Amino acid sequence: MKTQKKARVGLKDLAREVGVHVSTVSRALNPDSGHPVAPTLIEKIRKASKRLGYRQNLAAYSLKTNRSRTIGVVVPDITDAVFPPIIRGIEDGLAQSGYVAMLANTDSDMRRQVKVLETMRARGVDGLILASVLRSDKLVSRLADGLPVVTVSRRTDDPRFSSVVHDEDDGIGRLLTHLVSLGHRDIACIAGPQTVSTGFNRYSAFMRHRDLAGLQTRPALVSFARAFNEIEGERCAEQLLVAARPFTAVVCANDRLAIGAISALRRHGIACPSEVSVTGFNDMPLVDRLSPSLTTVRVQHYKAGFEAADVLVDLIENGASAPHHLVLPVEAVVRSSTARVRGATKRKVTEAAGEKS
Amino acid sequence: MKTQKKARVGLKDLAREVGVHVSTVSRALNPDSGHPVAPTLIEKIRKASKRLGYRQNLAAYSLKTNRSRTIGVVVPDITDAVFPPIIRGIEDGLAQSGYVAMLANTDSDMRRQVKVLETMRARGVDGLILASVLRSDKLVSRLADGLPVVTVSRRTDDPRFSSVVHDEDDGIGRLLTHLVSLGHRDIACIAGPQTVSTGFNRYSAFMRHRDLAGLQTRPALVSFARAFNEIEGERCAEQLLVAARPFTAVVCANDRLAIGAISALRRHGIACPSEVSVTGFNDMPLVDRLSPSLTTVRVQHYKAGFEAADVLVDLIENGASAPHHLVLPVEAVVRSSTARVRGATKRKVTEAAGEKS
Repeated sequence: MKTQKKARVGLKDLAREVGVHVSTVSRALNPDSGHPVAPTLIEKIRKASKRLGYRQNLAAYSLKTNRSRTIGVVVPDITDAVFPPIIRGIEDGLAQSGYVAMLANTDSDMRRQVKVLETMRARGVDGLILASVLRSDKLVSRLADGLPVVTVSRRTDDPRFSSVVHDEDDGIGRLLTHLVSLGHRDIACIAGPQTVSTGFNRYSAFMRHRDLAGLQTRPALVSFARAFNEIEGERCAEQLLVAARPFTAVVCANDRLAIGAISALRRHGIACPSEVSVTGFNDMPLVDRLSPSLTTVRVQHYKAGFEAADVLVDLIENGASAPHHLVLPVEAVVRSSTARVRGATKRKVTEAAGEKS
Repeated sequence: MKTQKKARVGLKDLAREVGVHVSTVSRALNPDSGHPVAPTLIEKIRKASKRLGYRQNLAAYSLKTNRSRTIGVVVPDITDAVFPPIIRGIEDGLAQSGYVAMLANTDSDMRRQVKVLETMRARGVDGLILASVLRSDKLVSRLADGLPVVTVSRRTDDPRFSSVVHDEDDGIGRLLTHLVSLGHRDIACIAGPQTVSTGFNRYSAFMRHRDLAGLQTRPALVSFARAFNEIEGERCAEQLLVAARPFTAVVCANDRLAIGAISALRRHGIACPSEVSVTGFNDMPLVDRLSPSLTTVRVQHYKAGFEAADVLVDLIENGASAPHHLVLPVEAVVRSSTARVRGATKRKVTEAAGEKS
């Protein structure tokens, strides 16, 4: 048996070693098999498998069961700090159930997304976790074609897809309450792309909570970013400045937009927070160490990934009939990019005086 | 043919449609096959495959060729900002050759690493790209067991493993030259874990370039971090302060240690850069927006990942006999965490006066 290349130890070798039929070995090693094997025999086969260095051939397993125990995970761009903790959560969640993640980036490019999904289907993934979807994602609906899908962090308008998202409405509501409590009334908004649920929901939440706070009579000063990044934050902040309508605070759809906005304001000689307060969303790494440190909404990225994995495995193994929709709670984190509005007290006094007269 | 569940279109259906033998279809669709098929026929088969919605069954392909076209990618922790661009590079590099990445994190936990590598082997990965290795990684040597391996960003002492790393010696050399040119002579070091090649190489480079700069007569003030993170940077900076030997600059083994060091110095009332200059390594996202913005070494994370994928695919497909070792060039990025040493001119004058007397 001394050959140059070690021959792979197969089920047959294992069966011969233990002295049972090959199908018994197969059933003993496959927990999904409907035909149980005596625990003592399983133990014996397990030990022999270890002794001989048997490794389950998952390609053969996959061909036979039509299950790969592999999940396709698609994100727009792993180098965006939002996604790594989500992916960590997915990986840990999947590992619990013996699944692994196959990862791909789309760069928010729809052609790339098609290619990625086709590759994953060809590789026989058992399901998909998508952080890359648009609100109206016909492409994904078509390509998923019966595969279990969970979207994470984002949501599509297709009700068949399960989702795990953050409570964006509550997050924006908390920030607005915080700003109003500091005396801000002229609150601008740098909204995210409206094709994506996070952008759309945070913007809708901003408009709704603005009304709830009684600010609906003031004109809404909103600039829409084309992407969730610093450059777009800078561009949008400049657009707000050009509008030449006064504002004392800016609610941004995520941290990266907020960072860009603060840079642009600073370039125009406007200090944050003493002249304009700025808020973010996500609480991504290092925003607590920026100057000023960023007031933002802390979301549970890791947990969202973990839960998405859990929901997907449940869909695959138990074929749940109705899709799951999970909304995770968030919290506001108040740091130094928000401050009491300058002259707020004075203005209040004037208003009060006005009411009297 | 109208069934509840669509039957999977197989090679046989495709062969029947085109009117050729099934082996011809197989060869036409498999570029690795040594038996070429006429281009016009390939085109015809491709079109039919598209029309019928044929998807290659990679499990079957894998079983037949013993190739999965899947690569195991192992990192310590994807949420550390260093790794996402490396993973992006790997994914893009692999995609070029039709491979995909299976991703796992180890949390720098050796037991978890063993489990991850066993899972990946069981799934028949064609090779491994490891960013998680220690310098002396007997475990990996044993578990890789004949599989092609490329380490990225880090290197092991096992010469069989190919590697793609950054020119750490040059990076640290450039920072030391920069600090010396600003008048610094008492330069401390916060070194990384010495069990990892990056930690070891940057520390060795610090000691070597210190000597080259003629600073060998001064006692070396070094603190060793147990991990490459902010908390350890804070602890090590405090250790340096406790030593009560004067220093005007600290070279840190990475950006996160530098960020922690600056925080700790600030807590002790020591301003960076006016009292102590601090440098990092990696140029990770946002360090240009910190206050002070960080002087550091820019490495090519994305390129390292891309090249590692390229080297690995080459090893798999051409079975190169000797391992490849790539060292990528780096550059120093000077920002505002480094400044001319306070009183440097004065001290120089005193020294010159001393020499005269």
